[in-house]
Parts: sequence; C-alpha cells; structure tokens
Amino acid sequence: MKCKVGVISGDGIGPEIVREAKKVLDKIGRTYGHEFVYTDILMGGCSIDATGVPLTDEAIAQAKASDAVLMGSIGGNTSTSPWYKLAPELRPEAGLLKLRKSLNLFANLRPAYLYEELKAACPLRDDIIGDGFDMMIMRELTGGLYFGARETKEVDGVVTAVDTLSYNENEIRRIAKRGFDIAMKRRKKVTSVDKANVLDSSRLWRKIVEEVAKDYPEVTYEHMLVDNCAMQLVKDPRQFDVILTENMFGDILSDEASMVTGSIGMLSSASLNDTKFGLYEPSGGSAPDIAGKGIANPIATILSAAMMLRYSLDLDKEADAIEQAVKQVLKEGYRTIDIMPQEAEKRASVREVGTEQMGDLIAERV
Amino acid sequence: MKCKVGVISGDGIGPEIVREAKKVLDKIGRTYGHEFVYTDILMGGCSIDATGVPLTDEAIAQAKASDAVLMGSIGGNTSTSPWYKLAPELRPEAGLLKLRKSLNLFANLRPAYLYEELKAACPLRDDIIGDGFDMMIMRELTGGLYFGARETKEVDGVVTAVDTLSYNENEIRRIAKRGFDIAMKRRKKVTSVDKANVLDSSRLWRKIVEEVAKDYPEVTYEHMLVDNCAMQLVKDPRQFDVILTENMFGDILSDEASMVTGSIGMLSSASLNDTKFGLYEPSGGSAPDIAGKGIANPIATILSAAMMLRYSLDLDKEADAIEQAVKQVLKEGYRTIDIMPQEAEKRASVREVGTEQMGDLIAERV
Ligand SMILES: CC(C)[C@H](C(=O)O)[C@@H](O)C(=O)O
Ligand SMILES: CC(C)[C@H](C(=O)O)[C@@H](O)C(=O)O
Repeated sequence: MKCKVGVISGDGIGPEIVREAKKVLDKIGRTYGHEFVYTDILMGGCSIDATGVPLTDEAIAQAKASDAVLMGSIGGNTSTSPWYKLAPELRPEAGLLKLRKSLNLFANLRPAYLYEELKAACPLRDDIIGDGFDMMIMRELTGGLYFGARETKEVDGVVTAVDTLSYNENEIRRIAKRGFDIAMKRRKKVTSVDKANVLDSSRLWRKIVEEVAKDYPEVTYEHMLVDNCAMQLVKDPRQFDVILTENMFGDILSDEASMVTGSIGMLSSASLNDTKFGLYEPSGGSAPDIAGKGIANPIATILSAAMMLRYSLDLDKEADAIEQAVKQVLKEGYRTIDIMPQEAEKRASVREVGTEQMGDLIAERV
Repeated sequence: MKCKVGVISGDGIGPEIVREAKKVLDKIGRTYGHEFVYTDILMGGCSIDATGVPLTDEAIAQAKASDAVLMGSIGGNTSTSPWYKLAPELRPEAGLLKLRKSLNLFANLRPAYLYEELKAACPLRDDIIGDGFDMMIMRELTGGLYFGARETKEVDGVVTAVDTLSYNENEIRRIAKRGFDIAMKRRKKVTSVDKANVLDSSRLWRKIVEEVAKDYPEVTYEHMLVDNCAMQLVKDPRQFDVILTENMFGDILSDEASMVTGSIGMLSSASLNDTKFGLYEPSGGSAPDIAGKGIANPIATILSAAMMLRYSLDLDKEADAIEQAVKQVLKEGYRTIDIMPQEAEKRASVREVGTEQMGDLIAERV
C-alpha cells in the first residue's frame, strides 16, 4: 500500500523526534510491503521564519492532500522567543489552531495510561496507582474559547479584553457520540466534564450529552464538575475510563492526566474529523530547552505514528507491531533520560539512551 | 472587643462544620475577652427552600452589616437535588456568586500546604513531597467567565449557548497587586498563570502583571500556561509560592492543588474586598453524601475562623491560638475519617473521632 503522509516537524525537539518516527515507519514499510511517501509541511515557528506566517494556504493544501499528518511539536519559549513579539494571529500556536479548524479536526483523543515498566516514574503513591490506570480523554477541539470571537478595546479609557465561549448543539452532539463510541470499545464508562453550575455552554453540554447517552444504554455515564475532576485525577485516577469534555477543560485536564501517569514522554494523541483523516502528535510540548541535545524521548511520536496506522490507514497489524516493539525495548531496560528511575538502585538495572538510539532500537525490533 | 460575625451555615455538611467553628470562636471569646455576636444568614439551597431564591436582598444587607462572614458550604448533588431543576439564576451556587459580586470580594486566597502530620494522606510519592510544600493560590473572584454575559438562543434552528470571558486592566491590576503583596510576606515568588498563547484576556493579564511586577523588584515572577501549571502541580508542587490567576483557572487549579496536598479537609480560604471585610470558608464542598452523619472534618472551617480573626478582625494572637490548638490535636493523634492513614499499621497509632468530638478537642486546647 502507498500512503501519503504529511509531516510537520515543527520547532524545538519536533524535528528530532519526528525523524525517529519516520525511521520506524520506514521499517514497517520494508517489512510489510508499504510505501510511505512523505511531504514536509511547514507550520509554527519554522514557518514564521520561512514565510512570515505560522501556516500558509499551501501548507493547508498539502495537509488536505495527505492521507494523514504526523506532527512533532510547535512553538518556543513564550517569554524569550521573538515569535512571541508578533501579533497573536502570527504566532506559532495560531498555525496549529488554524490547521485544526481548516481540517475540521474536532475530535481529539488523548490516551493517558500508566506503563507497567514505568511505574517508578509515576508521581503518585503505590496504593493510588494500584494495578494501574488507563483513561482516554476525548477533547472537543474546534469550538469553545479557542475559536470564539475575541477583542481588546478601550472602554472609557480602560483597556478591556474579551473572549467568547460558544457551543452549539451539533458541535456537542458529534463529539459526545465519539466519546460514547470509544467507550463502547473500552470499559463502557463516560465521565462528561463541565461547569454546569455556572456556564450556559456547560448546561447545554450536559443536556446534549444526556440525549446522546440514551442511544448507548450499555454505557454508564456521569457528569462531573471540572474543578472536581481536577481533584479526582490526582485522588483516584483509576475511576476514569473515557473523559469527555470541551476544548479548554480538555486542554487542562488532559495535561494533568498525562502527568499523573508519569509517562508523558510515552503518550500520543490523535485529532480526527468525520473522515479517516487525522493529525497525530505526541502529548508533550516542543521543549525548546532540550532541543538539539539528542536526549528527547521519541516514543510518544513513534506511538503517534502507530495510532496513525491504526486510525487513518487501517493498518492494525502494523500498528500492533510498533506498540510491541516499544514494549519490548522498555522491557529490555532502555530508557531516555525523562523516564529514568530516580532511585540509584533502580537506575542500575536500566540503560540510558539518546533519541536516535531509542529510534534505532525500536525500528530493529519491528 | 465585640465582633459582628455573619454566619452562613448553608447546605450539606455546612451546619455541622460551622457549629464546631463557632464553638472554637466562643472559647476564644471567653479566653481573650471578646464577644462574638452571630447573625445567621440564609444562602444556597436552604435559602431556596425558605424563600424561593438562593440569596435575598435582606441576606446581602445582613452580610454587609457584619464585620466578617463565616461560611460552611452550599449546594447539593447536582444530578439528584431538586434545586438543580430550577432556572440557573435560582440555583444554590447563584447565591454565592451574587454575594461575591455584591460585596466586591475580588481576591480569593486559597492556601494549599502539606501538614507534616498528614503526610501519609498526600497522594504523591515521598521523593516528590520532599520536605513538604506550601502554596498560596490568589484567584480573581468577581470577573471572567463567571460574571460575563451569557445567553442560550436558537440560531437557524440550532440551539447555541454563549458565555463571555471579559477582564479589564483595573480588575487585573488590583488582583495582581494583591498577589505580589502577599508574595512579599512569603517566599517572594509569583507564578502568574494564563493561556496567553490563545486568549486575548490572558494576553492583557500578562501585560498588566508585568507592569505591576515592576513595583516589586524583590519578587521573582514567571508566567506559566494553565495546561502546564496543571502538570507542574503534580510533578513538582514545591516550585510554587504564590500562584496568581483568573477566576476559572483559579477554580480548577486551587482544587487540584488542595487535593495534591492530601489535606483538603484542612484547607481554609478567604475572599476579600478593598476593606477589612472578608468571607471565610473551607476549601472543600458541601459533601451531601456524608451530611448529617457526624463524620465531616470541621478543621478547615475552624481554620477559616482563624483566618477571619487574622485578616478581618486584627486578632492575630487569637488566630495563632486556634492554629496551635489544631496542630496540637493532630499531634495527639486525633483524626477525622477523611485524614485517617490507609495502612493498618499507621492506623494503630492514631484515633478516629467525629465532627463534634474534633470541635471539642480543639476548643479545649485553645
Ligand atoms: C499549543 C496550544 C494552542 C495547544 C492547545 O492548547 O490546544 C496545546 O496546548 C495542546 O494542548 O494541543
Ligand atoms: C460553587 C461554585 C460556583 C464555586 C466556584 O466555582 O467558584 C466553587 O467551586 C468554588 O470554587 O468556590
């Protein structure tokens, strides 16, 4: 099979980690007889440097012409990078938001689970970890505060800034369906998160989720307020299966959840629309402080490539092969620095490797 | 001294925990020669039941006529309580929001720290706890999404709900000053949290915080994105001193921070305006599931009363006495059920007590 893969290397550690994911994909290609044809797509800071804007129309067209897009990460240090002196719509992140909107990528899947091999990296106590946890955060990605009208203006000489949080019932319904659909393939539980005791948008969210839930009698569902959910993720992460929520809450909670696992360098994500197309990227950021040092963990990006094979290209067997190879490498004791155990005695039983070596090890085991 | 204290017992466990705080205040009164004159103020579900609305004008007037207000907690189970069938502006929480606005309580202080005696209740691993942590969350409380215009309407037959997030520079400046002021009395570090890579209101927030910071050259400050902050609170809570943030982010992060300490039943909060007046309440919720069982932890409310003595009534010595009494009782091994250690062996060295007994023990030691 010939697959057209758009590749957004991006900024910071982006290029390094994407390189390793391509290495693994190429090994899949050779082993299973597929051809991955890559198109480099500029987005973020590197696009600003080259074209003056974070995402050109040409880049959008290239993404649309691909079967799927694999992304590293974009953006820089918001306090020191010159990109952040530009007008907001010209900054790196604006490119990502524009791409999500242009491709209608409304469903953002962010798995957060504890790797058995990486238990030692989990910040939680052993009795809270128990036999581990495995959540899927389903974040709405093209509505809410991120895409509402905004304005900064002077009112009677006082500068005032306004952002708008808007959702309509159709936007809520389609993401709620996705949430319940995925719950059916998992442990059949949905926790819908909102702030219905304050926000109108949350009250509509709750109402529509209740309607959608009627079509999924096998799924247990509950509503949870966002402040409570931020607590429960720390107190008892095992209670969650699918967390379904709007854009901003999903941004905050998915990052909290991935840190709670201690395995953030391992977590991939997918942003999907109504077709097979998807954008796949690691959960972590561009980490400008360690860029170019060859120490970034490429596993989340490699697992994002696996997700891409599974969701956009229907290559399940090949996706399995990558996931197995990652498990194997961990079992053999290889670790990048971010997932090294803290205690000296545990460090003795594992081996620290760099970005490139980790990519090689995984590719070899495919 | 004669002190006029408004008392909002509220719903759920509210009345039980407030009763114990009054017991401790009365002991302070007898010991130090003060008279606390209480006025019961109806708010929340109990006000709905009695008057049809969650907060009457009379209740607001009573609060305004007090030197300070001590509150338990309001609201019920949002899925099952009949209060939540009412129109949004008639629900329990609307009363609290209205009170905050009517009294201009824009500065919400939420301390989050680890009690040495309660280390075992902290969900984090020992090496992350280290020698403990102690943060103050300074949350803006009368602006942003909570108080913006909202509307649910049909647009071309599609129901759409809109909330508005608005801040002006003056609102930001006054809370930022409070944040830096309190940092000066602590470890002189401010972490200002926003989502400046997306929101206009956050970009204004960041700009004004930078202006205010110039007047506090001794304070180190940094900006942090809200999603990152949600991660850092779990990964390394020791890095924080004062977290300064807007209303909604503060709601989410302060709850996360208090759960991270494992001492949520111990954490008080203060909501202040430009005068000495303040509203004092525990960080936890109304916990309708355990209401009336006599097992709720009254310590957070008792410590809220101590905060009230300190901030609104200038009775520092008396506040110290309460805080000392609480420490003493913990040292003697008394625990309510929520702060009992999990491990059997550790349970043997402490003693479980109910709400009333805990209040008695603390009052006796004042
Ligand atoms: C870069 C930023 C706009 C983005 C977001 O907030 O959506 C990122 O934090 C994420 O979670 O994908
Ligand atoms: C009850 C609710 C409106 C309130 C809030 O969100 O402000 C509560 O969660 C809090 O944090 O004080």
